[in-house]
Amino acid sequence: MNRRLRIFAPATVANLGPGFDVLGLALTSPGDIVEAELSDRPGVEIVDVTGDQGLLSRDPVENVAGGAAADVLRRAAQKDARLSSHSGIRLWVHKQMPLASGLGSSGASSAAAAVAANELLGRPLSPLELVLSAMEGERAASGTPHADNVAPSVMGGIILVRSYDPFEIVSLPVPTNLRIAVVHPHCKVSTAEARTLVKNCSYGLDTIVPNLGNIAAFVMALCSGDLGLLGRAIDDRLVEPVRAASIPGFDAVKNAALAAGALGCSIAGSGPSVFAFASDDESAHRIGRAMQSAFKSSAGLESDLHSGQVSALGARVV
Amino acid sequence: MNRRLRIFAPATVANLGPGFDVLGLALTSPGDIVEAELSDRPGVEIVDVTGDQGLLSRDPVENVAGGAAADVLRRAAQKDARLSSHSGIRLWVHKQMPLASGLGSSGASSAAAAVAANELLGRPLSPLELVLSAMEGERAASGTPHADNVAPSVMGGIILVRSYDPFEIVSLPVPTNLRIAVVHPHCKVSTAEARTLVKNCSYGLDTIVPNLGNIAAFVMALCSGDLGLLGRAIDDRLVEPVRAASIPGFDAVKNAALAAGALGCSIAGSGPSVFAFASDDESAHRIGRAMQSAFKSSAGLESDLHSGQVSALGARVV
Repeated sequence: MNRRLRIFAPATVANLGPGFDVLGLALTSPGDIVEAELSDRPGVEIVDVTGDQGLLSRDPVENVAGGAAADVLRRAAQKDARLSSHSGIRLWVHKQMPLASGLGSSGASSAAAAVAANELLGRPLSPLELVLSAMEGERAASGTPHADNVAPSVMGGIILVRSYDPFEIVSLPVPTNLRIAVVHPHCKVSTAEARTLVKNCSYGLDTIVPNLGNIAAFVMALCSGDLGLLGRAIDDRLVEPVRAASIPGFDAVKNAALAAGALGCSIAGSGPSVFAFASDDESAHRIGRAMQSAFKSSAGLESDLHSGQVSALGARVV
Repeated sequence: MNRRLRIFAPATVANLGPGFDVLGLALTSPGDIVEAELSDRPGVEIVDVTGDQGLLSRDPVENVAGGAAADVLRRAAQKDARLSSHSGIRLWVHKQMPLASGLGSSGASSAAAAVAANELLGRPLSPLELVLSAMEGERAASGTPHADNVAPSVMGGIILVRSYDPFEIVSLPVPTNLRIAVVHPHCKVSTAEARTLVKNCSYGLDTIVPNLGNIAAFVMALCSGDLGLLGRAIDDRLVEPVRAASIPGFDAVKNAALAAGALGCSIAGSGPSVFAFASDDESAHRIGRAMQSAFKSSAGLESDLHSGQVSALGARVV
């Protein structure tokens, strides 16, 4: 009988203010579950998808989990021909987080499927290769294989994508008392549309220089544990000003977060979720509640709150 | 009899690849000397300037050292009225490094004059305030009060300017085995002209994102001591491509540095000096000699080499 694995991959927050396309972190919850087993039929089969309200493709080429698992198979076969010829993979994808939320939903499915496939094949791939496979899955969702969601979903922690070509990622230190509150309002922003909104923007150095200063300060703050500096560094002049207009109530929510004591606040990924940093659990929860109230009062939106630590763990067998 | 102080302020390398206007470091040499004494005549008087081949103004309003010292007097008087009413400052500026070299020549004179004035007045200003005063001096040279030269010249080490408004600087850690080679070819690039060249450029996110990744990686590398990562992070897509054309032989010099084992190589400030990082003294010297040879063979330029550690010390009494 085939062994069926069950993998959890965490939701993630990308960009983190000044770090468009290069910074992301893993949340402790929510996350997606992918079940997987080896199959005699070559290739990837998606047996079922739950929790997506029928919105996601079951075609393994168009589904991020399918694309990620297929890329793991391909890479594994390059390393060891015995892994390729007869085995395929069957996947069950259980969405446990909303689509188009800014929380790296497609990235979590990609990461879970990549790690599941790797586990079934006996772990032929390195974490870096798993990130690359998960990026291939992401290509199906956004058209662009960016890594700022899948890298932390695979590896946990806070990840810097130093370079896409050649591809290099760096794990950044996580201060022990860092906490995050993420509020997901019940409205949708398409990642692909959000990327289109910014990809034609152009910026002068006057606008770019503050982001250079802030992302550098953000990394220094992670290394030194200076959470005040970390908060001041959450200041994005490039993307937040463009995307904020597509999130109903954003200004009110950010103001509410800062008024409630948030160290810093910005858009999670391409939105509409909004995150804030705090220095203890109680503050993170209080700030999150203030953000929820502001979404309700300023835009009439219900929302979900996730608050807690950055997850040190990435995608894993559960 | 008046006490006359003698202050040395180090040359600096700004930008450091990905960090346009926000990163800079102090060299152990060269540097400028400013002598200063209190005077009964209010305001700042520049008694003499040596080593400038007559190029710098002796008018204290137009000379960076005069501007910096005057700003120290102004700030000191705001703190303590007794410091203002009767005292002025007389300065002797001894240029010991070439003008318009990319080595922060005007910044070193500004820093030395600011520290000299502060010492004479009994140290009323903090290091941050001294940086602000030295920036006011710099305004006379470049029209823009940027801090990436004066901050390391005042404070030593490697400095990040997180933000200009509000003004905030952060000292970054310096790995113990980091070495730098800086080669100054005997040609000139005006800081003001170099800034004009880039200030009208505009950039899409595709170009900006690599700099965000690289400056973040540069800071992480300083914190972790990973000099390989530090070298890979010296990759500037914003300013180097624009300014390289104004430095004769730049491509050959950079290639020579990398071929000789440099960790990374880019333009010092607005050029024409070029810097490279290395992991020991012998390598730094060898790399510097290779860069000198390349300036000579590719552009017929003689040059000066400075190689060694990053200076932990900034402007100081000598």
